[in-house]
Amino acid sequence: MKLNQFAHYTPNLTTQRQELINIGLINDNFDTCTFSNNLRMMVNNLLPADRTNSTKLEHLHRILLSNEIDLAAFLQQEAHQMPADYFNNMALQFLGFVVDDDYDLTQPQAFMKSIKLPIIKYDLNNNDNLITAFYTLLNMRTPHNLIFLDELANHGFFNDKFNCGHPHFVFFNGKAQPVFDTNKLVREVVYVESPLDTDHDGKRDLLATTIIRPAETGDGLRVPVLYTADPYYCGTNDRDCDQLTHNVNYHLQVKPTNTVNKPHYQYQAPQLPAARVPQDKQKCGEITQINGIDNRVYSLNEYFNARGFATVYAGGIGTRYSDGVRTCGGIEETIATIAIIQWLHGDRKAYTNKTDNIEITAWWCNGNVAMTGRSYLGTLATAAATTGVPGLKTIISEAAISSWYDYYRENGLVVAPEACQGEDADVLAIFTGSRKKDAGDWRYAKQHFDKELAQLNQLQDRNSGNYNCFWDERNYRNYADQIKCDVIYVHGLNDWNVKPRHVEKMWQRLRNLPINRKLILHQGQHIYINNMQSLDFNDMMNLWLSYELLDVDNNAPAILPNVLIQDNVVPETWHTYSDWQSDNWQSYYPHNDGTLALTSQDEQQTFVDNGVTQFLNGDRNELKWQAELLQNNSPYQANRLIWQLAPFADDVYISGVPTINCRVKVDQKTGLLSAQLVDFGDAKRLKPVPTVLSKHGIKLAMHGATDDLVEFQLDTATPFRQIAKGHINLQNQHNNWQNDPVVPNQWLDLQFELQPTHYHLTAGHKLGLVIYATDMAMTCRGENNDHYTIALAHTKINVPFTNK
Amino acid sequence: MKLNQFAHYTPNLTTQRQELINIGLINDNFDTCTFSNNLRMMVNNLLPADRTNSTKLEHLHRILLSNEIDLAAFLQQEAHQMPADYFNNMALQFLGFVVDDDYDLTQPQAFMKSIKLPIIKYDLNNNDNLITAFYTLLNMRTPHNLIFLDELANHGFFNDKFNCGHPHFVFFNGKAQPVFDTNKLVREVVYVESPLDTDHDGKRDLLATTIIRPAETGDGLRVPVLYTADPYYCGTNDRDCDQLTHNVNYHLQVKPTNTVNKPHYQYQAPQLPAARVPQDKQKCGEITQINGIDNRVYSLNEYFNARGFATVYAGGIGTRYSDGVRTCGGIEETIATIAIIQWLHGDRKAYTNKTDNIEITAWWCNGNVAMTGRSYLGTLATAAATTGVPGLKTIISEAAISSWYDYYRENGLVVAPEACQGEDADVLAIFTGSRKKDAGDWRYAKQHFDKELAQLNQLQDRNSGNYNCFWDERNYRNYADQIKCDVIYVHGLNDWNVKPRHVEKMWQRLRNLPINRKLILHQGQHIYINNMQSLDFNDMMNLWLSYELLDVDNNAPAILPNVLIQDNVVPETWHTYSDWQSDNWQSYYPHNDGTLALTSQDEQQTFVDNGVTQFLNGDRNELKWQAELLQNNSPYQANRLIWQLAPFADDVYISGVPTINCRVKVDQKTGLLSAQLVDFGDAKRLKPVPTVLSKHGIKLAMHGATDDLVEFQLDTATPFRQIAKGHINLQNQHNNWQNDPVVPNQWLDLQFELQPTHYHLTAGHKLGLVIYATDMAMTCRGENNDHYTIALAHTKINVPFTNK
Repeated sequence: MKLNQFAHYTPNLTTQRQELINIGLINDNFDTCTFSNNLRMMVNNLLPADRTNSTKLEHLHRILLSNEIDLAAFLQQEAHQMPADYFNNMALQFLGFVVDDDYDLTQPQAFMKSIKLPIIKYDLNNNDNLITAFYTLLNMRTPHNLIFLDELANHGFFNDKFNCGHPHFVFFNGKAQPVFDTNKLVREVVYVESPLDTDHDGKRDLLATTIIRPAETGDGLRVPVLYTADPYYCGTNDRDCDQLTHNVNYHLQVKPTNTVNKPHYQYQAPQLPAARVPQDKQKCGEITQINGIDNRVYSLNEYFNARGFATVYAGGIGTRYSDGVRTCGGIEETIATIAIIQWLHGDRKAYTNKTDNIEITAWWCNGNVAMTGRSYLGTLATAAATTGVPGLKTIISEAAISSWYDYYRENGLVVAPEACQGEDADVLAIFTGSRKKDAGDWRYAKQHFDKELAQLNQLQDRNSGNYNCFWDERNYRNYADQIKCDVIYVHGLNDWNVKPRHVEKMWQRLRNLPINRKLILHQGQHIYINNMQSLDFNDMMNLWLSYELLDVDNNAPAILPNVLIQDNVVPETWHTYSDWQSDNWQSYYPHNDGTLALTSQDEQQTFVDNGVTQFLNGDRNELKWQAELLQNNSPYQANRLIWQLAPFADDVYISGVPTINCRVKVDQKTGLLSAQLVDFGDAKRLKPVPTVLSKHGIKLAMHGATDDLVEFQLDTATPFRQIAKGHINLQNQHNNWQNDPVVPNQWLDLQFELQPTHYHLTAGHKLGLVIYATDMAMTCRGENNDHYTIALAHTKINVPFTNK
Repeated sequence: MKLNQFAHYTPNLTTQRQELINIGLINDNFDTCTFSNNLRMMVNNLLPADRTNSTKLEHLHRILLSNEIDLAAFLQQEAHQMPADYFNNMALQFLGFVVDDDYDLTQPQAFMKSIKLPIIKYDLNNNDNLITAFYTLLNMRTPHNLIFLDELANHGFFNDKFNCGHPHFVFFNGKAQPVFDTNKLVREVVYVESPLDTDHDGKRDLLATTIIRPAETGDGLRVPVLYTADPYYCGTNDRDCDQLTHNVNYHLQVKPTNTVNKPHYQYQAPQLPAARVPQDKQKCGEITQINGIDNRVYSLNEYFNARGFATVYAGGIGTRYSDGVRTCGGIEETIATIAIIQWLHGDRKAYTNKTDNIEITAWWCNGNVAMTGRSYLGTLATAAATTGVPGLKTIISEAAISSWYDYYRENGLVVAPEACQGEDADVLAIFTGSRKKDAGDWRYAKQHFDKELAQLNQLQDRNSGNYNCFWDERNYRNYADQIKCDVIYVHGLNDWNVKPRHVEKMWQRLRNLPINRKLILHQGQHIYINNMQSLDFNDMMNLWLSYELLDVDNNAPAILPNVLIQDNVVPETWHTYSDWQSDNWQSYYPHNDGTLALTSQDEQQTFVDNGVTQFLNGDRNELKWQAELLQNNSPYQANRLIWQLAPFADDVYISGVPTINCRVKVDQKTGLLSAQLVDFGDAKRLKPVPTVLSKHGIKLAMHGATDDLVEFQLDTATPFRQIAKGHINLQNQHNNWQNDPVVPNQWLDLQFELQPTHYHLTAGHKLGLVIYATDMAMTCRGENNDHYTIALAHTKINVPFTNK
């Protein structure tokens, strides 16, 4: 167990004292009272669930300070000092650690060091010592992904103090505290009028927007908003989507040679119907709930409800209860996404229902909005940020698409996200078009959506796989320099759904903007990480959002690391960096004998691309194919070339975008190339999915929901692991929009990027390069018999190394 | 999808009308209003989340009755009748089904039939029709494991009607409705004084008891209790337990020949310290909460909180916050378990804390208690029932141990529960002894617990594996005829932790008792089934508990099937029976050619028991071994004999306890025999673990917790599946307490039972018998080289068949 902590800072003693007074742990008389009285009072205040003196005393008797004395007995002694390890033992037991099971009562500091808890190293003998020791304790992390003050709050610490009177935010160590009762949250739905009429019904599209806000807003408190634009919020059309999935078992086509300029999309705002005219005004929305849907979008949002933040969810155009049609990342979806922010910021109108034109304002909102969410949700946060919309102060954008071309295409090829073969923009549009769930609504909307769908199908252009205006419209990086808000990007280095390229290319575009930017790269696939034991993610976001949305002067941009990367070898280990991507390149050439080396030799090697028949006649298991491709005695042995570098003597770190140069010829008029960078070496590696340490193990607030506590654990030993891969259409030698002919058996020179990475390669392991053609899991799968030859002297893998 | 429903009944029209009035769907004027007005009013009452007429109208427009008309338009017509399929379409869409995706708008009845929903077959044209149609609709199951009225309640149906005024239970279709606000539940802890002093501290053991009760009890409402005795409630000592696990890699020992009578345990009540003398009396308990523990024991309990039932949890002796020590199923644990019921029933004292002797009564309780829980929890429910304690009206005992000998032993052998090799009564006692978590408490209790542990270790007698007084004390079936309460037993037919023998032998003992008894056998392993889509388990329990604890005259014992068994071949299929276990026996003899047949032949076959070395030198994967033992070309081929019966022409059903007769000799002074009944045949079988259909897909109450919606789905095809197995020590030829010598190479005749089953064997499949010795997953694993010979003419498997 490692309880890493990045959101903690140590203010000066005066501030510590004042903060302890603010949360009610001590009172104004503190300095005039004796050490022993203050100690007793502070300890007793750590027992909010014990309501009587007898029960408090029973509780204190259960805590052992040494083999000789328990906490109750110690407090009865009127002691003038408290030995450091008495305090550390008390702290550990309050945090939930068990003597003997977890640690040795005589060695608390060794245990605290091993799990990365701060240690009290001095004996306490005056009131100032008490301040700093208890301040430290309240900020210590617990094994349940909380800090100790959160645990106390869950046991009622704040109940008596804040439930009455003038409601206000309470901050501690720069973070908003859970002083709001989630049992009393107000839930309402309003309909924001967007500047769109995507379903062409002659009325501007209304967007159903769900609001969950503290009841205290009714007493005049203005609160900030965590807003999640979530196209899945009102359900999905799973079956339709299965039917629409495109066939991927086809031969690559010869594309007509062309010479075009780089596609450039320009938005033409359509003529809009007149806006509604408000007939009346009202302060409460409707409470329509959504049938049978799990509205627990992201437990981070729920965590913040108790801390005074409102949460807002909107499905967007074409989703259930809203108007319009889906456009899968189109500019209209961006406009719909920011319409909600404009309303929250007071710049747009919303209505209590679709019929009566009764206006409703976000009168309870302080005008400051952050966006959260993962995947499509994080994508729309990125989209919104690139508009520079007023009111949007920051985005926490996780596993987000930064250009839809990179989601469904690569270098002139149709390349699927992992486990999504045959999906495309049109499929996702129908998947998220949950208006379909209401038959009475759909019979009007269907015709317009069908038109949109036909257009998506045509413009996405699966035939060419090229970058065009359709994809340029969906490339948010084009608008990166319009970003005005601070950003946090979170991405899994093993995310083969939304691949790491998305965050890497966006991160490049942010470097020179006058904003605060943070990057967190974890070892997960396409997941959230706020429930991971080894990281204080929720707390980090609290520091950040208190700074961004509540103007707390907590120095969050300086305290949080610029780049935080989870190690792929040592569990529970997070490295901090000032930036991502090394400039320290090294190139390796493949050789006929299967090695990689610093020097090149004039050799050739060939492989045949004919594995598809075997794959399609087998169980079509894409994950299994991926493993078989790399193994010795592979059924796909003839379909790939593998080269390995001599083992490294020490651990090395790869950081950034590996690229490949390749001189290749093929005996056909079409061809594609795939390449992988691989870590070869028997080792226990992290499991691909985090293990649940404790189901419901995280309590987000006293009356709030729970989340499962998870962590990455080591798997049984495996012989290799893919580090990165990439694909290219041989007809796109120069770029992804222009087609060049492939002449059979004539050499071509290619250069392309693999997915970016940050990879810890253990001493003794070998770095491997694998070249093949058809990727069963991602590219089209033609039953070919194509022969490829690689000119080894003109082929190299270029690897960026870093120091840690 | 199959929405089977067992807890529904159809009362007469007058009762239906009155119940609709009771829940506020219609009012007393109903009969005097027109059909169209009544229809409009009833439909509008199905929209509790829509607060204004406009929003209701928008909602009704979303529901399509035919391709021509939506519900809003239809209601505006002042119709004098409503076609049956208009109603069915309305019903399906209210239930959450989607037109086109789920079903064809022109064929609602076909779909309803396929998923087992009741169908309205008549056009509605009078008020009585409306009563029956809407009564039917409100009772229809939804895909989210609720009935439609539950969904409406989750959307606020009961909010306005019951939150004010005199609190009372509301019943519909014989079941308590969720009219209690779970946001307002009162949580408190009291300490029940037991008639025990198991930690010998000179004071009677106090038992910490957590109570969660409706706030309405404060207004004078008396409520019944669901009580779960849960030794895991306050945490477990996982690490100690790992250390204590016994070695199982040893040779079977020669046991001294003995002639003893069947062991008989007699409880000697110890001299007790004086009871406390109450100094004061109080109405509120303390609110001490338990640090970081997930207290979500069983979502069934949470489901009932909103329905007015209090829930009570107690860890029992030796668990955290309580006094005493664990005795792993000993009589003291039974006494501690019922102490809580005695307090709830007014027959015992409890205190607000351990110090002040302030008495507290269960003044809010109506005196009626049901016990719930699975595994150890269900075991203690069974234990409590066998005392006949007043106040305990029923138990819902799931996957319960009925005799601890059958949990850790079998026929004179130490036989582990699946995945628990090396566990025993002493290990479980330390596992559950969570007092250890409080170092200050443990330093006094440890010495007494260590003594108890030493005694457990000695008396459980791993050396002999025999039934003795220790195990007789822990055989609840001895006391079955003292059971006075009604019982529901639930057990997984694939539970190899608490094996089906436990419920089968208890069920036998219940047959002649004057109580109501129900049995549910599912296809799970060691799981709860109340979140399974194909079964209305929560609703069934509601019918039962409303009858048992609230005296509702709903005929529950007659409505619920006596025996309900889930089919192992056809997913989502539940069969009802009047009883379990067939008398229609058929015996099959093994033959030298590997067949089973109705006739015997004088042949012999041999095998060698020498697989342990290979197993221990390999990966020691017990599940893998189990599969390898049965497969062709098995690495354990020499260690087993397999015989197969000719395939059945039609499906057959095995029901009850297969037994085996075997004449065997071995070339050693010790020996054991294992036998399996196996289904051979390539087929897609149910996955061992239910698939999560929807995470958080079940909403237990409007403000209540959620549960995941699950169902058993078919796996990829497998060649065989174990139906049942059994083990015996050759030194226990006559019974499990007497040792007889094994003379090398001398024939022995054995008869023993395999685990009971209910198994659907598909036509074309072959029934198989497998005989071997060491069971890597359950028995001791000596590195033997023992040769066994089976006399086939004197060996047979006896199989009980039934008709369905």
